[in-house]
Amino acid sequence: MTLDKIYHAAFVLKDIIRKTDVIAAPELNPDAEIILKTENLQVTGSFKVRGAAYKISQLSDEEKARGVIACSAGNHAQGVALAATKAGAKSLICLPDNAPISKIEATKKYGADVCLVPGVYDDAYNKALELRDSEGYTFVHPFNDEDVIAGQGTIGLEILEQVPDVDAVIVPVGGGGLISGVAYAIKALNPNVKVYGVQASGAPSMVKSVKEGKIKKLASVTTIADGIAVKEPGDLTFDLVSQYVDELVTVTDDEVAAAILALIEQQKLCAEGAGAVSVAAAMFNKVPVAGKKVVCLVSGGNIDVTILSRVIDRGLLKSGRTLSIQVNLVDKPGQLQGVANCIADAGGNVTYINHEKATEDMSITDAYLRITMETKNFEHIDEILTALSDAGFTYQQF
Amino acid sequence: MTLDKIYHAAFVLKDIIRKTDVIAAPELNPDAEIILKTENLQVTGSFKVRGAAYKISQLSDEEKARGVIACSAGNHAQGVALAATKAGAKSLICLPDNAPISKIEATKKYGADVCLVPGVYDDAYNKALELRDSEGYTFVHPFNDEDVIAGQGTIGLEILEQVPDVDAVIVPVGGGGLISGVAYAIKALNPNVKVYGVQASGAPSMVKSVKEGKIKKLASVTTIADGIAVKEPGDLTFDLVSQYVDELVTVTDDEVAAAILALIEQQKLCAEGAGAVSVAAAMFNKVPVAGKKVVCLVSGGNIDVTILSRVIDRGLLKSGRTLSIQVNLVDKPGQLQGVANCIADAGGNVTYINHEKATEDMSITDAYLRITMETKNFEHIDEILTALSDAGFTYQQF
Repeated sequence: MTLDKIYHAAFVLKDIIRKTDVIAAPELNPDAEIILKTENLQVTGSFKVRGAAYKISQLSDEEKARGVIACSAGNHAQGVALAATKAGAKSLICLPDNAPISKIEATKKYGADVCLVPGVYDDAYNKALELRDSEGYTFVHPFNDEDVIAGQGTIGLEILEQVPDVDAVIVPVGGGGLISGVAYAIKALNPNVKVYGVQASGAPSMVKSVKEGKIKKLASVTTIADGIAVKEPGDLTFDLVSQYVDELVTVTDDEVAAAILALIEQQKLCAEGAGAVSVAAAMFNKVPVAGKKVVCLVSGGNIDVTILSRVIDRGLLKSGRTLSIQVNLVDKPGQLQGVANCIADAGGNVTYINHEKATEDMSITDAYLRITMETKNFEHIDEILTALSDAGFTYQQF
Repeated sequence: MTLDKIYHAAFVLKDIIRKTDVIAAPELNPDAEIILKTENLQVTGSFKVRGAAYKISQLSDEEKARGVIACSAGNHAQGVALAATKAGAKSLICLPDNAPISKIEATKKYGADVCLVPGVYDDAYNKALELRDSEGYTFVHPFNDEDVIAGQGTIGLEILEQVPDVDAVIVPVGGGGLISGVAYAIKALNPNVKVYGVQASGAPSMVKSVKEGKIKKLASVTTIADGIAVKEPGDLTFDLVSQYVDELVTVTDDEVAAAILALIEQQKLCAEGAGAVSVAAAMFNKVPVAGKKVVCLVSGGNIDVTILSRVIDRGLLKSGRTLSIQVNLVDKPGQLQGVANCIADAGGNVTYINHEKATEDMSITDAYLRITMETKNFEHIDEILTALSDAGFTYQQF
């Protein structure tokens, strides 16, 4: 890798990508000055288009005419598709045939052909390599490629230009392409800036590999940050991360969910799990941010709204803005009214209620109510529960 | 109003506000080139800080020392609070005492004192005027004030600078302060640019007033775009809108919800209802956008996550990604299994299920299942429903 290459990538990319804004996030961690580099607002909703576009720009006219191939159900597929279309090259994306329809459609939308392969990711990957060999496509690796890494490195240049006095940069890590480029660019220009990498605790392949000093492959990965659920780093990215990254840490799925919710509420930004791990690391002090000016790279925003809806619901529960309880009733008239009065008087807003007869561990004449309500905060929940207790009701919170 | 005043506001504001980014939104309306002016990413999450900060900057030192007062439960309160704090002035915000705790906390967070007034908005407003007279505060009107209007007008200057070849600008309208400033600035500099205003169909006070040629007060307003639920325009804003705005239109709550969801999914941006009405107008062709380069002003992003969660759920339902059905069962073993098989084989992902005995219009031995599941799209829903029918089940969709 050379700094030259990254500057060249920046020159090539300037008509294809957006120079995404940096936005202050004063509330994410009151002890630090947090600034977000908003690659979730990049075209295609993720940074991946940078590496793909630079890679494709370096192909010969003959290679472009034969086309490019990639294997991905996510941001890399959309990045390759858009970059190829802008370069006038054909692109074919191999996907496992159980990939979500929304991802398939998004990939087609940017101009790629899609090849659905029966099986899982590895089958699609092998199919892509097979087609590369038989049809002459150029394979665009999602991270273990010097041109791809240089393309992602342009974000490092932008961060130093947009936040010249930055103390530290926090970067999501999956296969390691993004952080390899960013860390190289930043350390080459200003070695005083710390570069931290963040993985999901359910997919810590780079963390494990760097700790043990050699590439480790995980048997399985599981995290809501699916964009960085990578089983094994590449050799190029392993070397660059080992050399240029100051520290690697992990965050849990609950921490990621809290970060996604905080980005929505405080910053009006929608991030995917992989994009929010950097923010989670800053919020929960996984790396030393206190007193520092810290850029969190929010790498992408392509979150399924179904997942987003669940994250919000979970976040509401965890911040005291939803209460779900089961109230035990004796089987006589007026019980429902009593419960309804308690909740209404205390200002709870009921969104779900279900009345059921006794289960086996209760008296046969008894019943219970399952109730979900909107609440203001934890004190408000206490008020409502106290009102129910004072009125003689017993309940379980769940 | 003068262009001078708006340029002066831009000069004064440059260290207080962010020059928010403009972002292309290629999918919102395939027939137009839509660009978003992202004031939801403004400090405090809305444009309101611009007008408040310019107003406060024009006060004498003595007036600043006595402090400013405003009445608002929303974006204006936060704008005034932050602007006053930055100017070293005291601020007091009057709120009705039933205002959401989150809004009260947000206002305090920016440095304002909060005065909770028993009653509704009008009571809080009268209290603010009373305190202005008795304590010498300067009242900061949310829209009917020339300095406030000039502050909002700075967005017009930015739009012309950031998108010099813009054909039309679409602006949310509540009391009319934002569009008055924006329209004045744009028409003064380039009268060829169309300026359209959008109100919620449940709060069309400016639409009605302009149509009838005099200020009309609505008896009540109701919309999810609560930030623009204003009963009566001001005299200054009425005059400016009448003179400089090309057309005023309305959008329904369902259209606003669709716009909020589209901004999340396609643009990774979180907008409040009032902030999304401009996008709704462009999506649903309420104004002539086809073939034009159109800037939609997304004025704010302060949406309660509880509301956001409901908007997403509604959006999922409306786009075929959730299915709720009631399946009728005859009361014999294996029925649940049969239904579960149909749904699982067709790829539906069950998120809620409830088994209930007969209601009065059914045979006493019968029962039904209420099921909610995640689906891919409307075709997928058809597949699942067909599978159920083919297996002999009857159902109601709801």
